[in-house]
Amino acid sequence: MGEFEHVLVKREDDTVTITMNRAARRNSLSEEHLRELLAAFRQTAESDATGIVLAGAGPVFSAGHDFGDVAARDLMGVRDLLRLCTDLMGTIQSAPQVVIARVHGLATAAGCQLVASCDLAVAAESSGFALPGGKGGWFCHTPAVPVARAVGRKRLMELALTGDAIDALTALEWGLVNRVVPDDRLDEAVAELLGRATRGSRAAKALGKQTLYAQLDRPEADAYALAVEVMASASQLPGAKEGMAAFLEKRKPEWPD
Amino acid sequence: MGEFEHVLVKREDDTVTITMNRAARRNSLSEEHLRELLAAFRQTAESDATGIVLAGAGPVFSAGHDFGDVAARDLMGVRDLLRLCTDLMGTIQSAPQVVIARVHGLATAAGCQLVASCDLAVAAESSGFALPGGKGGWFCHTPAVPVARAVGRKRLMELALTGDAIDALTALEWGLVNRVVPDDRLDEAVAELLGRATRGSRAAKALGKQTLYAQLDRPEADAYALAVEVMASASQLPGAKEGMAAFLEKRKPEWPD
Amino acid sequence: MGEFEHVLVKREDDTVTITMNRAARRNSLSEEHLRELLAAFRQTAESDATGIVLAGAGPVFSAGHDFGDVAARDLMGVRDLLRLCTDLMGTIQSAPQVVIARVHGLATAAGCQLVASCDLAVAAESSGFALPGGKGGWFCHTPAVPVARAVGRKRLMELALTGDAIDALTALEWGLVNRVVPDDRLDEAVAELLGRATRGSRAAKALGKQTLYAQLDRPEADAYALAVEVMASASQLPGAKEGMAAFLEKRKPEWPD
Repeated sequence: MGEFEHVLVKREDDTVTITMNRAARRNSLSEEHLRELLAAFRQTAESDATGIVLAGAGPVFSAGHDFGDVAARDLMGVRDLLRLCTDLMGTIQSAPQVVIARVHGLATAAGCQLVASCDLAVAAESSGFALPGGKGGWFCHTPAVPVARAVGRKRLMELALTGDAIDALTALEWGLVNRVVPDDRLDEAVAELLGRATRGSRAAKALGKQTLYAQLDRPEADAYALAVEVMASASQLPGAKEGMAAFLEKRKPEWPD
Repeated sequence: MGEFEHVLVKREDDTVTITMNRAARRNSLSEEHLRELLAAFRQTAESDATGIVLAGAGPVFSAGHDFGDVAARDLMGVRDLLRLCTDLMGTIQSAPQVVIARVHGLATAAGCQLVASCDLAVAAESSGFALPGGKGGWFCHTPAVPVARAVGRKRLMELALTGDAIDALTALEWGLVNRVVPDDRLDEAVAELLGRATRGSRAAKALGKQTLYAQLDRPEADAYALAVEVMASASQLPGAKEGMAAFLEKRKPEWPD
Repeated sequence: MGEFEHVLVKREDDTVTITMNRAARRNSLSEEHLRELLAAFRQTAESDATGIVLAGAGPVFSAGHDFGDVAARDLMGVRDLLRLCTDLMGTIQSAPQVVIARVHGLATAAGCQLVASCDLAVAAESSGFALPGGKGGWFCHTPAVPVARAVGRKRLMELALTGDAIDALTALEWGLVNRVVPDDRLDEAVAELLGRATRGSRAAKALGKQTLYAQLDRPEADAYALAVEVMASASQLPGAKEGMAAFLEKRKPEWPD
């Protein structure tokens, strides 16, 4: 792995943990921080790891964009920053690995966007989630994109218009996270859910994840048109053949990939 | 009704119950089974029944595709099978009748897809729901299409990536089913909900159901463009005229269709 | 404000309350009533108010379309009425103000559509919500459009096909409303939520709200394509500059708009 200033990358068995390590700035997403996160995800995406944990060092998960790095930018400068941030979200979703957010403290603005963009999320029960732009002078336009696709419309409006934080149990009820656990059991719960989400054929899972994101948000007939073709092709992969053979022969499968 | 090997079709009053009757194979969806289900739905769609119950005989609702009928197929063979399966899902949604799933035991993979594709679903409290492809070598690509449209995004990811089952109460909380009842009250609850869902003008209901599926998953303005035209036309149907007249005259309506 | 026969418009500080005042007809939406509501929203949209409360006088919030004004219409007549009604829903969503529904009694058919179309909604615990067309001779085609976008698919089907009412707590659980409170605390809860939703820069909020509706219901990549451009532009607004400067200088912002 490359050397980073703001990001820690650690591999343990098949899991890579990418930690936002800019605690003094509440893991805010300066251009440099975003570039390093993007590089870390791209490198890991090309590795043979099966899971990625996205975590934050220090008191909070991430406070979102770093106003110190935004305030002086002109239109094109902010646009470049937002496109970089959007690239990071897209890279998380297109990575072949299962990506899980490990959320503690606060996940606000683009920090909340990161949680919504990871495939799965586990939150400490003391954590909170907000799109605070709504009570300020800008607005959480891009963070609202994946958050809108995780929670219902009225809930999105409340988050985006009030700017106030919801607690972890509300985030669970609204579908923004998958699990809420006592703070001291966060790592254990992340490992447990990620372990269950990374079983099976690696190639099948990667194709599956990418097809899920491609078919979501589309009219059902469009989604089927894609899913049928991918699923037909996927049936010919060595892993699919092995899985079906193992099932029919009542033995444990051995994944070829 | 035609004679089927794997499917039971029984009419009682205005309700047709279509039962997957391949209990020894856990009602798995071989090509022959899918063809019979499709034929049964098409025949019933053309009848004057107002409601359809989809049920499964034996220990589970349906285990999804029959690997015994998939494993030896080449790409085009699997593609044909998946297109047949997708036709069945589309036929359920385009039928003029209200279709309700009566779920017991397990509904997995394409079995879970059937539950998501029916208009309504009532589940026994001991039942479970899974997209198990995610822990295998293929992946539940097509089952994830309607499931994604019933539950939230993070919940879809958890179901599809872990492959593990959720219980009936979780399915209710996530919006995959409409009711969960004690196992011995399943038939009663199905009849009760279906009874309430089949009142009113048959023609109006058929047009209503078909328009709902056509407008879902689209930008709101597109949905309105369709719904306004259909609703304007529908106002001129004999049933609509009768319904309004009865309301204004404070009498019970008599549906002409 | 103009003079209306069926609608009360009252401004208090930065909030305008628009009250459907046709209690004897259960605030049903005749053409004249719709025209007045549309005019009231358009006038208020152009004012410097920051919030709008939509309320109903008398025993219920709104019973939807007025069959007395529909029954005699031909196809084009009903179409005109529905287009007018759809214009009202669009005007609520495109208004720069935050619009909150204050729901009591019953919100049925186009009345329920109004609740779903407002940005936020607070309901009295004794209130109920229904799309009753499903048990009649017409069908709630257009009301189902925004309701489908607030609740899940199976829940939409249950509401639309049965026509039966759900209570306020169910509406809360399904995401159709943001708060349920004891009946005698309804005004207080509306004011509290609206107060929190109208903080910050007025221009930023208006742009934010309009972009939310524009990006919803679209594939995520389309939503980002829009949100990135708007958010980059919005960063150059005086309010955004002031908000970031105030944050960095640790002082209270003074919104220029």
